[in-house]
Amino acid sequence: MTSKPHVLIVGAGAIGSFYGAILKRAGCRVGLVLRSEYDAVAANGIQIDSPLGDLSFRPDDLLRDGDELESAPDYLILCVKVLPGVDRAALVKPWMGKSTRLVLIENGLDIERELAEAYPDNPLISCLAFIAVSRTAPGRVDHKAYGKLVMGRYPQGIDDNAQALSALFTEGGISIDLTEQVVGERWRKCLWNTPFNPLSVLANGADTRTMLETEGGEALIRAMMQEVSAVAEADGHPLPQDMIDKNISGTRKMPPYKNSMALDYLNNRPIELDAVLGNVVAIAHRHNVPVPHLTTVLVALKMREPQ
Amino acid sequence: MTSKPHVLIVGAGAIGSFYGAILKRAGCRVGLVLRSEYDAVAANGIQIDSPLGDLSFRPDDLLRDGDELESAPDYLILCVKVLPGVDRAALVKPWMGKSTRLVLIENGLDIERELAEAYPDNPLISCLAFIAVSRTAPGRVDHKAYGKLVMGRYPQGIDDNAQALSALFTEGGISIDLTEQVVGERWRKCLWNTPFNPLSVLANGADTRTMLETEGGEALIRAMMQEVSAVAEADGHPLPQDMIDKNISGTRKMPPYKNSMALDYLNNRPIELDAVLGNVVAIAHRHNVPVPHLTTVLVALKMREPQ
Repeated sequence: MTSKPHVLIVGAGAIGSFYGAILKRAGCRVGLVLRSEYDAVAANGIQIDSPLGDLSFRPDDLLRDGDELESAPDYLILCVKVLPGVDRAALVKPWMGKSTRLVLIENGLDIERELAEAYPDNPLISCLAFIAVSRTAPGRVDHKAYGKLVMGRYPQGIDDNAQALSALFTEGGISIDLTEQVVGERWRKCLWNTPFNPLSVLANGADTRTMLETEGGEALIRAMMQEVSAVAEADGHPLPQDMIDKNISGTRKMPPYKNSMALDYLNNRPIELDAVLGNVVAIAHRHNVPVPHLTTVLVALKMREPQ
Repeated sequence: MTSKPHVLIVGAGAIGSFYGAILKRAGCRVGLVLRSEYDAVAANGIQIDSPLGDLSFRPDDLLRDGDELESAPDYLILCVKVLPGVDRAALVKPWMGKSTRLVLIENGLDIERELAEAYPDNPLISCLAFIAVSRTAPGRVDHKAYGKLVMGRYPQGIDDNAQALSALFTEGGISIDLTEQVVGERWRKCLWNTPFNPLSVLANGADTRTMLETEGGEALIRAMMQEVSAVAEADGHPLPQDMIDKNISGTRKMPPYKNSMALDYLNNRPIELDAVLGNVVAIAHRHNVPVPHLTTVLVALKMREPQ
C-alpha cells in the first residue's frame, strides 16, 4: 500500500458518502462509483452537513458502472443495499484487484457469504454502521448523529487489514469498535432490527412507540426477539440473556421514531427484507428452530405486490 | 304476527338492501334505517341490479337514527359492520319491541354474544351470508351472484322463529340452509376468512392467487388454518379433518380475487378485524391454544395508525 491509501466506494448514498468523507479527511485518495447522481456530484462534489464540521469533498475518482480505473484500489467499500435483484459480486468485479480489501458497510445477517465465495483470496472486512444520516438531494447528505463502525474480519478475527482500516477511520474522526466476532455483532443488531424493521413496514410505517403501545405489541416484539435469540444460539452466537429486556427498555426511553426500513417503505424505496429477516428465517430452517412469528411477518411482506 | 310481517333493517348497505328486497318480494313490510344515504333513498328508493331480476323497491318506512316507529317490527335485521366503535345493542334499542326477533346478517365469530346479553328475552337468529354484492352509489346495489343464507337460532337449534323467517326468504327467491349449529357454521366460514382476509390486508390488498403463490404463502395460510381449527375444536366445534385441504384446493381452482376485507382496506373503509380475527385469538387465549401466526397478523394490523 502506498502512503496514500486508495479507496473506492461503490454505492455512494448517504452511508457511502459519509464514510468516504471520513477517509478523505484521513488523507486517502477516495473515488466514488455513482449512477443517477453522477452529474450532480461531478458539478458540485459531495456536500455533507455534519456535527463533525463541513465534511464536503470532491472525489478523486468519479466513475460510473463499467468505467475503469488505472489501478485497483487498496480498499473497495461496498455500501449498496442488499436486495434480491442486486448481484453485488458482479457489481464490484471491474475494480477488484488481487490484493484489494473488500469492505462491507451494509445491514443484515449472512450478507458476506456470497462475496466471500466470489472473492476467496481477497481479505473481507465486515462493518456495521451505527449512524443517523440521510440523503437530502443528489450529492447532498445530512449527517445528524453518531457514526461508529463495528468492524471485523469475516468470518471472524481481527487482522492487519481491519487494523489498518480502523486506524484510517479513527484518524478521520469517528470511533471504531474492532471485534473478533463480527457475525455475533450482526446477531446483536438483528435482535432489534429483525423484529422492529419489517414489522413497522407491515404496520405501514408505524413508529417505535406506536408499535410498543399497541395492545399485544410489546409481547409480539418480545416473541420475535426470542425467536431471533434462539436462532442466534443455534447458529453458534448466543446472545446475553438480558438483552431483550434491555432492547425493550432502551427503545421505550427513546423518543418515538421511524426506523430506516419504515422510512424506506414510506418513501417507496425497496426494503432489505432478506438481509434483515429472510436470512434469519433461512438459518432457522437449517437448524430446525421454529420461528412462527418471524415467518408470518416475512411471508406477509413477500405477498405484497413487487414494488 | 300479522299476515304481513313487519321488517326493519338497520344498516342498509349492500347486504341489508339486498335481503330487504328479498323480503319485500315475499310480501313483507320493509323499513330501512339509513344515515348518509337517506336523501338518495327517499328520492329514488333502492335500485338493485341482480341476476334474479330487478329487485328495486321503495322502503315502507324510511328512518334515521332516533326516528320512532308507531309499532315495533316483527324482525329487526342488523346488517352493520362489527367494529370496535359501534355499540350495536344501543343502535337497535329504539326499535326493539318485546317480541321483536333480532336477526344478525353479519360476518365473524362470537359477534352474537353482546346482543344476546343485551336482549335476553328476544329471540336471536344468526345468519351467515354467502353472496357477492356491492354498493355502487347511494341507494344503488350491484348483486353479482349467490345469496344463500345459513341461519340458525343463537346459540344453537332451530326454532319457530328461524323457520318462519327462512320461509319468507325462500318465498322471496333465495335459498336458506337452516342449521342446528350456527356457531359451528361460523367456525367453518372463519377457517377461510380468518387467514385470508386479514393477511390480504397486511399484504396491501393482494388477491388469492398472489397470496397462495408467494414463496411460503400456502404454508403460512395452512398454518393459520390449523390454528383456527385447533381453536374451533377447543371451543367445542371441531371441523372436518379434510377441510383445510378442500379450502386450499377450492381457492386455487377459483379465478384470483380480492376478498371483501381487502376491498374494504383498498377503499379506505374500516375492516372487521376483531369479528374475523381478534375474537378467534381471544377464544384461543381462553382455551390456552397457541396461535402465534394469527397473533402476529392481528397485532401487526392493530399497530397501523387508526383509520
